[in-house]
Order: sequence, then structure tokens, then C-alpha cells
Amino acid sequence: MIANTSLQVSGERFSVVYRIAGDQDDARRRSEHICIEQTIEFPAELIADDDIRGHVMGQLESFTPLGETLHEAEISYAYEVTASTLPQMINVIFGNISLQPGVCVHRLKLPDSFTANFKGPRFGRTGLRDLCDEPKGPLFCSALKPMGLSSKALADQAYAFARGGIHFIKDDHGISDQQFAPFRERIPLCVEAIEKANRETGMNCKYVPTINSPANLFFEDARWAKEQGAGGLLVLPGICGFDAMRCLADDDALALPILGHPSLLGSYVASPDSGYSHSVLFGQLMRLAGADTSIYPNFGGRFSFSREACLSIVEGVNSEMGDIKPIFPSPGGGMNFHNVPDMIASYGEDVMFLVGGALHRGDAGIEENCRKLRELAASELPASLH
Amino acid sequence: MIANTSLQVSGERFSVVYRIAGDQDDARRRSEHICIEQTIEFPAELIADDDIRGHVMGQLESFTPLGETLHEAEISYAYEVTASTLPQMINVIFGNISLQPGVCVHRLKLPDSFTANFKGPRFGRTGLRDLCDEPKGPLFCSALKPMGLSSKALADQAYAFARGGIHFIKDDHGISDQQFAPFRERIPLCVEAIEKANRETGMNCKYVPTINSPANLFFEDARWAKEQGAGGLLVLPGICGFDAMRCLADDDALALPILGHPSLLGSYVASPDSGYSHSVLFGQLMRLAGADTSIYPNFGGRFSFSREACLSIVEGVNSEMGDIKPIFPSPGGGMNFHNVPDMIASYGEDVMFLVGGALHRGDAGIEENCRKLRELAASELPASLH
Repeated sequence: MIANTSLQVSGERFSVVYRIAGDQDDARRRSEHICIEQTIEFPAELIADDDIRGHVMGQLESFTPLGETLHEAEISYAYEVTASTLPQMINVIFGNISLQPGVCVHRLKLPDSFTANFKGPRFGRTGLRDLCDEPKGPLFCSALKPMGLSSKALADQAYAFARGGIHFIKDDHGISDQQFAPFRERIPLCVEAIEKANRETGMNCKYVPTINSPANLFFEDARWAKEQGAGGLLVLPGICGFDAMRCLADDDALALPILGHPSLLGSYVASPDSGYSHSVLFGQLMRLAGADTSIYPNFGGRFSFSREACLSIVEGVNSEMGDIKPIFPSPGGGMNFHNVPDMIASYGEDVMFLVGGALHRGDAGIEENCRKLRELAASELPASLH
Repeated sequence: MIANTSLQVSGERFSVVYRIAGDQDDARRRSEHICIEQTIEFPAELIADDDIRGHVMGQLESFTPLGETLHEAEISYAYEVTASTLPQMINVIFGNISLQPGVCVHRLKLPDSFTANFKGPRFGRTGLRDLCDEPKGPLFCSALKPMGLSSKALADQAYAFARGGIHFIKDDHGISDQQFAPFRERIPLCVEAIEKANRETGMNCKYVPTINSPANLFFEDARWAKEQGAGGLLVLPGICGFDAMRCLADDDALALPILGHPSLLGSYVASPDSGYSHSVLFGQLMRLAGADTSIYPNFGGRFSFSREACLSIVEGVNSEMGDIKPIFPSPGGGMNFHNVPDMIASYGEDVMFLVGGALHRGDAGIEENCRKLRELAASELPASLH
């Protein structure tokens, strides 16, 4: 029999609200199993009724039917099991249980004393508005593409986007360090192009390179990009891990806005029965891990997210999480001019539009297309915001 | 119109075999879309018929119906789009397309000239056998648990496992740096306990700490563990990212076996219609990223993987991939003594048994249980291997 009754523990706990598919008996049994699987991963009957069983193990706080085959289980975990780190927190929330079917992480309930372990986004929504000197209305983001263009051609594009008033001009998420436009060649050229446009327009548009470097060069490349004058970093936490993004956000030597990109994260929201809810993944986790903006595929584009899912992300980026700042939702993925009215109606002004290919179409050119996009969005805003 | 006809490219390509759910017209349309989405992510009609369209863009090499609503599309990508890095290779294989439904990465077809960009596992199956001085028969792995025990109690367990002949004695995957058993306290104690047992038995059992550290401490913690005498590293690529694992495997200053753990990876195999196939995720990707052993939940345990899925992992860990070594499959997750005959029958001798809680049950004690497990496995092996 295993026992430990001498743990020095705080007694403080955070909770995860899971949705469990299955009938009531099955869902309850599996909820009780999650309490074990995510912590002690050990036959509970071999553990004495001690601190491990009463504190280290997850505790089923409530169990509520939402329907005949769907139940909600709130499970609390001791702060200590996370070692106050994001990787181990994620491990506790969904690590092993991701391997069992029919379990969805629906919501995180994180007391202020717990979120105090995390800095979250450095800028957040208000900070980005200050940086861009745009106290109201949507912000705008676009991407340098396609892969295969030279650094010079991408820098020319960046200049046109900046002339047109796009606040965050990012690399396409697939542009990293290909020989077509090497990282160390492309970044200075794009920075220079945008700075030239800024001098001409008086704006403060920013170049945001993709940091999808090998793990051993990741932080070094980000710092190098900052030294060259990058104005933000595009990060792919599905590939580099959420905690690598957090480190960039927390780094006072960088102090750059972080745009969180959803690459490779789709499988976590592919089924309503399992994975994360959109709100947790693209809202709460992105914020905890320091993203100032959460990019995701909007409804009505070339991806499959529903309007409801997208609006739940808005809830996630705004939800109460102690001192963790609210961030911008950044819906993209095939957005065109005709989507703008619906996007403004759905998101209001606190949104960062991510428009890519559409700004390349037609004869007017990128700069003029950007101006039209900004004007269109402004005209759709409620009069009170003009 | 975008054009670039001056690319210096090799002409060499690797392929991804996707399975696409949907009727023939829909699946073909979506296959053609993948070629764009995973590379240029740009309206193809705006690109001249040049090197970008003919080389940088993915190319649909074949399209084959597997049934009325399932099709197989083989898409080739230029080596150059991966920038010869694993993060960008993963981005190309499944990054954005993970966000669309009904696409599964079924198999990677990687020419030798491409796999030459990756070192893969340092030891592989043969290397681990040499390290353990076990030229035949299964290897054995177990986990120190439950979370909440002191470092001293975990070290006592490690001693018993080593006395019982468990080759790789790992931390439970959730044990990282909790105050119950801090990383820098636990590792030296467990190393010492196992070395004592090795002196007594003449074996060469190894302590394998979990490296689930914050990203900024990840490599430092791994090196520190090596300095203390750790004999392997348990790594969670679903949390730290596959490339962080690759860096550990590639690090000549470490030169330690890597045990790849499936935490957080379950959502990628939750649906047969989307994500990765078991064989790609737990076989090909684990190997490319340097794991010497791929841990996954076995059929018949407390998880949901089918026998067929598990055997496809065996195919993945053994498949032809140039100089990338074959590795051990390590099925675990609630394995008990009664599972052993079926596991030997299914896996043969090239398997690393991961048995946890079962070795704690009964009155015989851990050391004796381990001996019984080894004896049972040996007795089940075909006579030719005795």
C-alpha cells in the first residue's frame, strides 16, 4: 500500500470542465478515471486514503448530464501537480486522456492565484491598439506570399501592404528559411521596406516574420529578428509547442507582439466529442501561452469552422482569467471583401482582420486594395465608432 | 500575375499519401486544394505557369478511389519547401490542412536523399539491444509512480525495478518538477539507486527521467540529467514539439536513448478520417524525430487503440526509411501479466514491454513481480528464440 501523508501542499486547486460522451454510468466511470489518469496513473486501490488520494489525485467536483449521451464533469487538480509550468499543466489537462475517445476539454476554470503563475500576453488587445495608435476599429493583418518569391519580391509586397495601412504584415506561415527567401536575407529587406513606407505614411506598420526554426535555433532566431527590427513574431504553437511561444512572449529582451497561428492544431477541434473546445484552444490556451492575437480560420472561408465555433473563440480570448489580458481574435483563411460586413457584424471592432490572397486580386494593386479594405471595414462599423 | 522562373531548385521531391473522405469529385477537388494550401497558400490563378506553380506548389501524383467515399491522393512536395527542417516539414505535411475535415496523413514516402537530412534515432533497435546487452527477446520498461511520492520513495522503487531486471526505469510521464519530488533532487537519488542494483545484479538498467521542462530550460535540464547519470530521456513531443525531441536525439553531448511518449497526441488519431495514421505518427514521425522507442497504448488495456492500429505502428517503426534506424514499439497503458502471451504472439521479440501498475500488485513485491514478468515473457517466446 502506497502512502504519503506528509505533503506540504497549498490546498489550492484549478478546474477543468470536460465533456464526456456516453451514457450516464459510462460517463461517470470515465470521469472518475480521468481523475487518476491525469495525475497518479496508478491503481487507486493500492493507495491509502492519504494526501495522494485526497490531494494529488484529480477530484470530481461535479457531474452533470447535458443530454442522454453527453455529460459534463468538472475535475479539480492541485496547483502543485502542474509544477507551476505550462508544459506540465497541459499534460495534466489533456495529456494521456487525449488518447481515449469521447473526452473534450470544454473550459478551464483558473483562479487568479493560479493564473498569477503566468504572464500571458505582453500587450494584449489594449497594448496592440497603443502600439498601432489605433484606439478604435479593427486592426489589419496580411501575409507575404506565395512561397517561392525572392526576398526582394516579398519586401516589395511588404512595402505595398504598409503603404496601404496594414498594421501587421506577416510572413505566410509556411515561409521560414527556404532558399527562395532565406530568413537572414528576407527579414532585413522586409523591415527596411516597411520602415520606408512608415516614414512616408506616418503610420507604424510592423513586419512579423515566421519563427518556425529548429528548436535549437528558435530563441536565437527570434532575437536576431528583433535586432533587425521585426515588429512582432508569428509563432506556430502546434509545431513548436505552446511553451516555446510562452518563452518568446515572456522574454523582456524581445518584448514583441506574438501572433499565434493555428497550424497543426486542427485535429484538436476536429470532433465536437473530443480534443479541446475552440474556446479553450484558440482562446484560453493561446492567451496563457502569451499570444497577443489568436489566428484561426473564419466561418465562410475555405475552412470548416462554424460561426458558433468562431464566436466561442471570441469568448475565450475575452474570458475572465485574472491578470491575463484579453487578446485579439484574428479570423482569416480565405477572407474576401464580401465577407467584411458579416465579420464586422459578428465581431464588432475588437478584431484583427487577416486578409491574404484577396488583396492581390484585381487591377488596382495591393496598396489600393488595402485602402479599400480599410475603408470598407470603417464604413461597416456602427456610427458610434466612427 | 506572380512569377518566378529563376529558382535554383533540385527537382527532388518527397510524397505524402493522404486519405480523403468524400465522393470522387469532392475528394479530387480537395486533393488539388491541398497542393496549394500546404505550400503557396495563394490563388493559383494569380500565378504564372512557372517554377512556383510547377515546383514549389504540391503536385498531385496520383488519385485512387478506395471506396465510394474514401480516396487516396499522393501529393509530392519539393525538398526545398521544407527548408530541410523538421518543423517546416511537419508544417508542409499537415499544418493548415489539419484545420479542414476529412484529411488523414496515411503514409510518408521519403526518398533516401531526403531522409539523409535527418539523423533519426541515435541507437535504434539494435543500439538499444547492445546498450542493454540483450541480443534477443523483449526489453522491459516500467514507470516510477504515483506522483506525490518523495524522491526517496521513488528511488526505492527504482532500486526494486532494477533488481528485477527492468531495462528502462522511467519517471511516470506526469512526474516532472513537482515539489513532491523535485527534478534536481529526484534524479541523483534514482540514478544512485539503480547503479547500486546494477552493481549487485551485473545488469545495466537505466534511469530515464521525464524531460517536460519549460522550453527555455528544456535542453539545460536534459544535459543536467545526463551529467547526473541518467541513462535515457522520456520526451513528450506532443507537448514540447517533435523538433525539440529531435534536438535531444541529435545532441552528441547527450548521446542518450530517447523514449517518445504519446501524451497529447491522441487527438491526431482520434478519427480514422482525419489527423495522422497511427503508423505515421507513432512510427515514421517518432523515428524521424529521433525516438529510439515509441510508447503507445496497447490494445486490450485501458485505452482505445485497436489491435490493427497497434500492428500498423509496428509497420511504421520498421518501415524502410533510408538510414533512419528501426526502433522499438513500446506498447503500454494498463498492461497486466495476462496480456503478455497475446503481446508476444502479436509483437514477437522486437518489443519493449511497458508495464506499470501491474508490477505493484500482490504481496510478492516489485522485484519479484518484475522477475515473474520476465520469466513469463521468456516462456511465451517461440522456442527458436530461447
